[in-house]
Amino acid sequence: MDEPIHVVVLGGGFGGLEFCKHFRCEDARVTLVDRTNHHLFQPLLYQVATAGLSAPEIAQPIRSILSDRRDITVLMDEALDFNLTERRVFLRENTLHYDFLVLAMGGRNSYFGHPQWSRFAPGLKTVEDALLIRSRVLLAFERAENEAKREQHEKLMTIVIIGGGATGVELAGALAELARTVLRRDFRHIDPAQARIILLEGGPAILGNFPPDLSASAQRHLEAMGVQVRTSTRVKDIREREVELENGEILQAGTILWAAGVSATPLAEKLGAELDKAGRIKVMPDLSLRGRPEIFAIGDMALVMAEDGRPVPGVSPAAMQMGRHVAGIVAGEIRFGAKNARPAFKYFDKGTLATIGRSAAVAWFGKIHVSGYPAWLLWLFVHLVFLVGFRNRAAVLLNWAYAYYGYKRGARLIPGDIAAAESEQRE
Amino acid sequence: MDEPIHVVVLGGGFGGLEFCKHFRCEDARVTLVDRTNHHLFQPLLYQVATAGLSAPEIAQPIRSILSDRRDITVLMDEALDFNLTERRVFLRENTLHYDFLVLAMGGRNSYFGHPQWSRFAPGLKTVEDALLIRSRVLLAFERAENEAKREQHEKLMTIVIIGGGATGVELAGALAELARTVLRRDFRHIDPAQARIILLEGGPAILGNFPPDLSASAQRHLEAMGVQVRTSTRVKDIREREVELENGEILQAGTILWAAGVSATPLAEKLGAELDKAGRIKVMPDLSLRGRPEIFAIGDMALVMAEDGRPVPGVSPAAMQMGRHVAGIVAGEIRFGAKNARPAFKYFDKGTLATIGRSAAVAWFGKIHVSGYPAWLLWLFVHLVFLVGFRNRAAVLLNWAYAYYGYKRGARLIPGDIAAAESEQRE
Repeated sequence: MDEPIHVVVLGGGFGGLEFCKHFRCEDARVTLVDRTNHHLFQPLLYQVATAGLSAPEIAQPIRSILSDRRDITVLMDEALDFNLTERRVFLRENTLHYDFLVLAMGGRNSYFGHPQWSRFAPGLKTVEDALLIRSRVLLAFERAENEAKREQHEKLMTIVIIGGGATGVELAGALAELARTVLRRDFRHIDPAQARIILLEGGPAILGNFPPDLSASAQRHLEAMGVQVRTSTRVKDIREREVELENGEILQAGTILWAAGVSATPLAEKLGAELDKAGRIKVMPDLSLRGRPEIFAIGDMALVMAEDGRPVPGVSPAAMQMGRHVAGIVAGEIRFGAKNARPAFKYFDKGTLATIGRSAAVAWFGKIHVSGYPAWLLWLFVHLVFLVGFRNRAAVLLNWAYAYYGYKRGARLIPGDIAAAESEQRE
Repeated sequence: MDEPIHVVVLGGGFGGLEFCKHFRCEDARVTLVDRTNHHLFQPLLYQVATAGLSAPEIAQPIRSILSDRRDITVLMDEALDFNLTERRVFLRENTLHYDFLVLAMGGRNSYFGHPQWSRFAPGLKTVEDALLIRSRVLLAFERAENEAKREQHEKLMTIVIIGGGATGVELAGALAELARTVLRRDFRHIDPAQARIILLEGGPAILGNFPPDLSASAQRHLEAMGVQVRTSTRVKDIREREVELENGEILQAGTILWAAGVSATPLAEKLGAELDKAGRIKVMPDLSLRGRPEIFAIGDMALVMAEDGRPVPGVSPAAMQMGRHVAGIVAGEIRFGAKNARPAFKYFDKGTLATIGRSAAVAWFGKIHVSGYPAWLLWLFVHLVFLVGFRNRAAVLLNWAYAYYGYKRGARLIPGDIAAAESEQRE
């Protein structure tokens, strides 16, 4: 009997996991490699960062999701390099030979050539990012409560968020609610309702990829919640607790968050493929690499054009559609050989959603624009449906009900190790 | 108007929090100081360590618990030293003057003069301890799955727990279940059901403070779950992934856990009071310090005798009773002056419970001994009732139902920073 065909998938995010779920082929075995042991439901990561959810509620063990698939092996390991000629991936612990390779490692925070900013302004890509942000925000209020000098209170209670895309908007809304409702009654020396939340956007409007009426609606909602929205405002430098704008203005802030840029994992550079300036691989229409039909890139690692001539956006539905597309191609070629021309990937835009806070969101499906409460209900529904695992769905629903009716947040834990590290950094 | 009397409480555990809840006095204000921002429900900490619960589900922000008490200020800070003559506590950030001082800082892991063991065998006192243990256990299975050499699998899949008290027994039961049911189907190269869980106890029986019939019942239950229970077995040395017993035998293990000793916080030494060998303060019958009627020690910091002549055990009901006792004394003396002799603390033993795993526990109320399923139901009920906060109760119930009916655990997240630190340590 022949050795089964070996398909290696790097990354257990939306794209890689969807590939595994849809790839079914008796003559093949699959190895899924991820740096972490969990699939992360990134659309709700901002709720971990703002104390609404606990991390395990949006992080499901990959091997548990795939436990019924005896043809799939999950390895917690990290890809370091490739030998494309010999079809090998070098992991930290092992070396894998592949017949097909699916690159689905997603993106990471990009500071546009200023990596030193990451220390002062963490971004939001991983569970650790979210826990760090949660701790920084909560610690800033704790420090203000401890601080006798009143002039320090305003600075400590200022949060600057850089980047007015969906992540920045969602963070700003959730943080405004946290300060104005959740924390309001919990302090004695400071008034958290006086916290300043400033959202900076370099372009002319927040949610720049949304239609103008929805961008404007989102801005009005945020401003009604007390968020200062500053568009056409570019950042020149970020230092400890200080943001310098291009016009020379300096914003002092207890917490600075980065939501302005994402780039593909630097491992893409080791493939010799053509990359765009965000590090994404310019893939062929079938999502394979030029001259390497056995290698595919999907999700945030891939640059591919939609039918409207614009790049397919880096959102989870796109990654999942790409995963399914590649699963179909690979399974077909293993079964029937590579006889036919491969189909081109077609992105089906199911619509775009962003939530702004309690009972408010904006949604957009082609010509249909929805905002306010109906959009929020839709947002709720979509996120519960797509969240992996029954327990998580029930837990998240419980937390949301608690937050909604109790004006409370259930995950305000500051882990002691982060508190200690932050306190050292300050000294 | 006079300055109100200032009561400073150090520690927001069971004792300190119960003091605050029961202390009501118009002429006084209270400052509660804790190193962390949360009250930790320690009886369920082992479930965080064994991936059943997420940390926020048993950690409630102290200032949120006390938000309705406008007379109480909560500070996240750490006591470093005292000036008892001037009645001052020196915190890291501030200095507080007190009229009454309540010491309720609890205990910490004690390695009987071998602090170097803590690196190899973490104990279970804090949220960080629990997350480290969870990560170590899960990482050991991940490494075994990655490991080609079969002879390494057995070592990596061995867990040694040192200490057969309630914590050790609960950890052993929960880890046996984790390996044998939860993880069973999730791996391809290893069989987690082959994991060895070894519970070492220096004394002649596990749960040494329980009546012999219940100790024996607990041991039978554990053995039926596949745990190797070794009593009268003392540890001579702990090294990386290696436990040396007093008889010279060496146990190799992927994970070593410490559940053998707890001592009071070393800050007790700065009080000039008489301590026992576990670092607890030998308090007067009213729980005050000898010669310092304005200072009280409660909970795991205090050594006081019960009516049977044995020390009051270091359990949460005892700490809570002490907190209430001191709240009554302090409130009475502020209102009416210190005219009367203070009442002595009387410990009311409500019974002792320990759970062993799925559907099994042992419980003991004076002459009534319960084991098996009824004791487990009782354990469930008591822990849900005493858990602080409605959301947490609902969340914990949800997780338990999920674990019970689905043979799953919802909190198997390995945080990336711990994974990275563990992997560095190994290299």
